[in-house]
Amino acid sequence: MLIVKKFGGTSVANAERIFNVAKRVIESYKEGHKIIVVLSAQGDTTDELIEKAAEINTNASKREMDMLLSTGEQQSVALMAMAIQKLGYPAVSLNAFQCDIYSTSTYGNAHIKNISTERIGEELEKNNIVIITGFQGVNRNSDVTTLGRGGSDTSAVALAAKLNADLCEIYTDVDGVYTADPRIVKNARKLSEISYDEMLELASLGAKVLHNRSVELAKKYNVNLVVRSSLTRDEGTIVKEESAVEKMLVNGVAVDKDIARIALVGLKDEPGIAFKVFSLLAKNKISVDIILQSIGRGNTKDISFTVSITDLKSVLDIFEANKNRFNYEDILYNDKVAKVSIVGGSMATNPGVAAAMFEALYDENINIKMISTSEIKISILVKENEADRAANAIHDRFRLDQVK
Amino acid sequence: MLIVKKFGGTSVANAERIFNVAKRVIESYKEGHKIIVVLSAQGDTTDELIEKAAEINTNASKREMDMLLSTGEQQSVALMAMAIQKLGYPAVSLNAFQCDIYSTSTYGNAHIKNISTERIGEELEKNNIVIITGFQGVNRNSDVTTLGRGGSDTSAVALAAKLNADLCEIYTDVDGVYTADPRIVKNARKLSEISYDEMLELASLGAKVLHNRSVELAKKYNVNLVVRSSLTRDEGTIVKEESAVEKMLVNGVAVDKDIARIALVGLKDEPGIAFKVFSLLAKNKISVDIILQSIGRGNTKDISFTVSITDLKSVLDIFEANKNRFNYEDILYNDKVAKVSIVGGSMATNPGVAAAMFEALYDENINIKMISTSEIKISILVKENEADRAANAIHDRFRLDQVK
Repeated sequence: MLIVKKFGGTSVANAERIFNVAKRVIESYKEGHKIIVVLSAQGDTTDELIEKAAEINTNASKREMDMLLSTGEQQSVALMAMAIQKLGYPAVSLNAFQCDIYSTSTYGNAHIKNISTERIGEELEKNNIVIITGFQGVNRNSDVTTLGRGGSDTSAVALAAKLNADLCEIYTDVDGVYTADPRIVKNARKLSEISYDEMLELASLGAKVLHNRSVELAKKYNVNLVVRSSLTRDEGTIVKEESAVEKMLVNGVAVDKDIARIALVGLKDEPGIAFKVFSLLAKNKISVDIILQSIGRGNTKDISFTVSITDLKSVLDIFEANKNRFNYEDILYNDKVAKVSIVGGSMATNPGVAAAMFEALYDENINIKMISTSEIKISILVKENEADRAANAIHDRFRLDQVK
Repeated sequence: MLIVKKFGGTSVANAERIFNVAKRVIESYKEGHKIIVVLSAQGDTTDELIEKAAEINTNASKREMDMLLSTGEQQSVALMAMAIQKLGYPAVSLNAFQCDIYSTSTYGNAHIKNISTERIGEELEKNNIVIITGFQGVNRNSDVTTLGRGGSDTSAVALAAKLNADLCEIYTDVDGVYTADPRIVKNARKLSEISYDEMLELASLGAKVLHNRSVELAKKYNVNLVVRSSLTRDEGTIVKEESAVEKMLVNGVAVDKDIARIALVGLKDEPGIAFKVFSLLAKNKISVDIILQSIGRGNTKDISFTVSITDLKSVLDIFEANKNRFNYEDILYNDKVAKVSIVGGSMATNPGVAAAMFEALYDENINIKMISTSEIKISILVKENEADRAANAIHDRFRLDQVK
């Protein structure tokens, strides 16, 4: 089998951990597999480099930031190759230039467009364990780019897709995908399988296990993805097209506290006003999540929506700058809210699910501020300090601790 | 003018120093020059990376070492670009992949074979200050190489040669080339000019100012080279084809304590024995310096030679492994020796120079163990603990403290 194994920064934070990963990789190699290892920068390296840059220029150009940050992964891969060689096995490290990891131009948040398999193939032919820098690409100007948060997951999946790998293993500090965050919901249960779509929803709803883009890519190229722990030998969770084993109504509960609600109050009620609001935000690359449009009073209406808390200030600035264009009476915001969501494959065809979720919250006396639904998820907005209680109530209501 | 400016690791060791360099570079840019900056890794970065590698594999492959070490320069250039941008001037950093700094394959000690001027030219056209990683190249396998000790000087000179730069300034922590090491000889004097050949001899004789290969390259392509201080505004020393101003008999005294003498005693006196000894060493890439062949007793003879102290163990191992082939009686070595040399353009045509040097040592009661001469230098071997006294005596004898 050809297996891509991705390890995060904590898994390679020091010499001891690097050797742990090396041993684990070698085990798999000795079973006769061809192995590609994708690594992030060691532990706090990226943060240290960001700090170094901040000492010089708090508003450094993104091109130079990427040039700087990409060195972290190059260090990890070289050190890992040395560790594997020390243990007596052949290894070679490659960076984004050497693998032609061709990306879009957007520094700090580039997308992989293509990967040349030539060099990687040659090294695999020589029976080398091939260790590749995650998180980075090279754009059409031959400039270094980085792929943004969770970028190394995306690198691993992209490599697996391009090389037709039999398996892509994402090693992390949790041992799989859970029905809810175990730190919030005590009896959260690890799932043995989950579908791409459900994983996507969970990822976008705040589950920190896999980054969205990596799951999208896995789904697009039908990559066999496994999330497992770098610390234990547990099986982990398989992410695949159809979750045959656990075709459950509800597969997980997710909590996202890093959001804020914004309300434009007293907007003139004219055709296209919602389009204008959200196209302006889209133009400024602000992702909007739950949207609520009130019927309004007289010839005005209110539009509320949620955004990531990191975008809150930008959004307020944008509307302040465009006040005349929209003619709203007031703009309100609340950053003490949280989104609680349930995800499950068969939700759309089971109308009772939403009702059961709302009932669980009603029993807990938790007020729902906004609701948003899709084919496979239902999200509600609650007060931030009620979010954990809400998640537990819902988890209990759907008995997610029990395998169905 | 197109000017290449090279700064070493201490000049960019922290944010404050990076800004000092940035300001100095900008001054020159504001005078209307096109500027290329070549940088080493920050301060102790390279040593820290070597330490990191040693924690994992004390015998790490040189390929992976180069992959690791080259990240240091990439960090410096990105940080420098940020600093220059912060001060309001346009800058861009480039690594060896982006400039196609094509090198030989020897990891850890590669030689630059070619540099593509395309990208650099484009960036200069855009009026950018172009900041390039020193010390590194990319070989024909697209693998990262490093250029060995003093490699960034070589990068700077190679870039100046390839781009037909008007000037190549090597900024260092001394303010020029001296008649002797000022730490050893108190009244050593800074030279305003020196010829390539003299500089070459001084470099190979232990003067740490410029690395040999960079001077060779400067001579080959007739690059206008200036050695000057990164801390002061002093003029520095110009290294050029002919030193018209100071056509002195003797231009400098150099001391090299990092050498060892090896003697093969009782070698069978047969034709080609010296050839066999030194071709074996050459095959093992050991540079031999002073050679002395005794007439010997009976049908045996002795051969002594000096090597760099770092090669001592290898040389002993090599002869141990080839003992049968050479049939010597004994192998002796002494690492408590030092080489003291004088360098000067007109030495060959002035037979009195050697005599004056030997006389100075005789007056100091210093015993000469070996002698070696060339067109422009005379080297002698003395006891290590007599070397500084020897250098001072010679410096005084030729009145090198006075401009002639």
